[in-house]
Amino acid sequence: MSKLIECIPNFSEGQNEATINGLVKIAQSVAGVTLLDHSSDKSHNRSVFTLVGDEVGIQEAAFQLVKYASEQIDMTKQHGEHPRMGATDVVPFVPVKDATLAECVEISKKVAKRINDELNIPIFLYEESAANPSRVNLAKVRKGQFEGMPEKLLEEEWAPDFGARKIHPTAGVTAVGARMPLVAFNVNLDTSDISIANKIAKIVRGSGGGFKYCKGIGVMLEDRNIAQVSMNMVNFEGTPLYRAFETIRFEAKRYGVNIIGSEVIGLTPAKALIDCAEYYLQIEEFDYQKQILENHLLS
Amino acid sequence: MSKLIECIPNFSEGQNEATINGLVKIAQSVAGVTLLDHSSDKSHNRSVFTLVGDEVGIQEAAFQLVKYASEQIDMTKQHGEHPRMGATDVVPFVPVKDATLAECVEISKKVAKRINDELNIPIFLYEESAANPSRVNLAKVRKGQFEGMPEKLLEEEWAPDFGARKIHPTAGVTAVGARMPLVAFNVNLDTSDISIANKIAKIVRGSGGGFKYCKGIGVMLEDRNIAQVSMNMVNFEGTPLYRAFETIRFEAKRYGVNIIGSEVIGLTPAKALIDCAEYYLQIEEFDYQKQILENHLLS
Repeated sequence: MSKLIECIPNFSEGQNEATINGLVKIAQSVAGVTLLDHSSDKSHNRSVFTLVGDEVGIQEAAFQLVKYASEQIDMTKQHGEHPRMGATDVVPFVPVKDATLAECVEISKKVAKRINDELNIPIFLYEESAANPSRVNLAKVRKGQFEGMPEKLLEEEWAPDFGARKIHPTAGVTAVGARMPLVAFNVNLDTSDISIANKIAKIVRGSGGGFKYCKGIGVMLEDRNIAQVSMNMVNFEGTPLYRAFETIRFEAKRYGVNIIGSEVIGLTPAKALIDCAEYYLQIEEFDYQKQILENHLLS
Repeated sequence: MSKLIECIPNFSEGQNEATINGLVKIAQSVAGVTLLDHSSDKSHNRSVFTLVGDEVGIQEAAFQLVKYASEQIDMTKQHGEHPRMGATDVVPFVPVKDATLAECVEISKKVAKRINDELNIPIFLYEESAANPSRVNLAKVRKGQFEGMPEKLLEEEWAPDFGARKIHPTAGVTAVGARMPLVAFNVNLDTSDISIANKIAKIVRGSGGGFKYCKGIGVMLEDRNIAQVSMNMVNFEGTPLYRAFETIRFEAKRYGVNIIGSEVIGLTPAKALIDCAEYYLQIEEFDYQKQILENHLLS
């Protein structure tokens, strides 16, 4: 059984169909890699690709996509609503099956080095691959965006992890890193008071003193007239979904508010939910790898 | 993505290594099929094989195994602790991925017909494939065992589903059918009173008026001095694990008894546990096929 690694490169092009189609063709042409999904947003002027593949293929596909983007996208002329600093803005690698986060860190560094060696694009390593805590958060790394990067690279603490203190003239700077799969998990409350959702979001999220691997904000669902705690669970092993859920439940009680439902948006690894079943069913000594039938079927 | 079907044939041979090895070789030689596991019990004089494969391969493998067993195992000389009626005693087909129970019923009937056509072994269809309710339960179908079968087949209600009212002289009779994957799920109580576990088992199991797809008995865990409700969940979609679990919880309260843990024994389909996470996390409109990442990876 071979390792499976996901890569979700974000490109600063969401309008030019020829360029998007070119990226799709490359993603579909690398051996050992499957393009699971891609979506483009015109107002954001950005495309997000989701690829999965073996250790070798995923590195090749990531590099070839970054290369093509650097040839096609001219950041000096690019505008959109979404913050960005490079033609390929960010390249995260995510362990999916039989691969560890540490292995994805290694992969991210190899790809980062190759991008810089062959394309001369400076690279910041971020998230789990970050060289220091100030580079973990993408928003901090990207602050200043493409236009501010020439100056930022000259600041003492912002030397790129790979490459010189000088942007690629048209492709800018790219962030490469490794992270756990992200689960978008929203919990709905039986209140129309957004301030309650905001207070609870602050309690559960790491930045508010809550769970390290949980990000969260309060959101109003206008059509249902209810408030929601909208979360990104950025490491479901470090902060399991049920722990955030039960914390929201007991914090909401203070306001006489109850949970009326939840949503998982998009894809989730099976384990993020099976870990919750283990908790609620109080299963003793469950072995995910050995006891889940499907883990014996994936080749 | 191709359908995956599991087949778990039971052979009335658990002692003769040459025969067991012969079965293993056949199971490993059919294209499109993987032998996941096999185990033999000498005192039971029985071997259980677990194969998984595509629609075509699994039928071929099942037939070839039954053929070989009919050539090697002489039921007139076979003795063991486990009840049995044929060289191949029972051949269940189970939907694993992208296959339905209805499709497995069709497969079971095709294989049953071929076994009878080519090997002249009479077949009872059982479980979901059964022609009438009295043939659903294997124990009822097998009652009388190999020695009683010649007479049983002559009884008005026990004409085989395929073949004449006459056993194969050395291979006896075989039961073929389709069923959902079975999950062995045990719930531990904080009492050493086995009678409480027995009472609760009777309440949750279908035969006691409880959940249709749940079988259960009380069991004493001597080493821990606690009683357990030991269950087979024979259709986790019809009777989800959480429903049996929560019923055991509230029934135990009558006796001042609490659940202290549970066990899943052996393999479980991911969905059996993910359905429980959906319940406890109150997830709205979850789409198992689309939202579980791994479902996009299985080829």
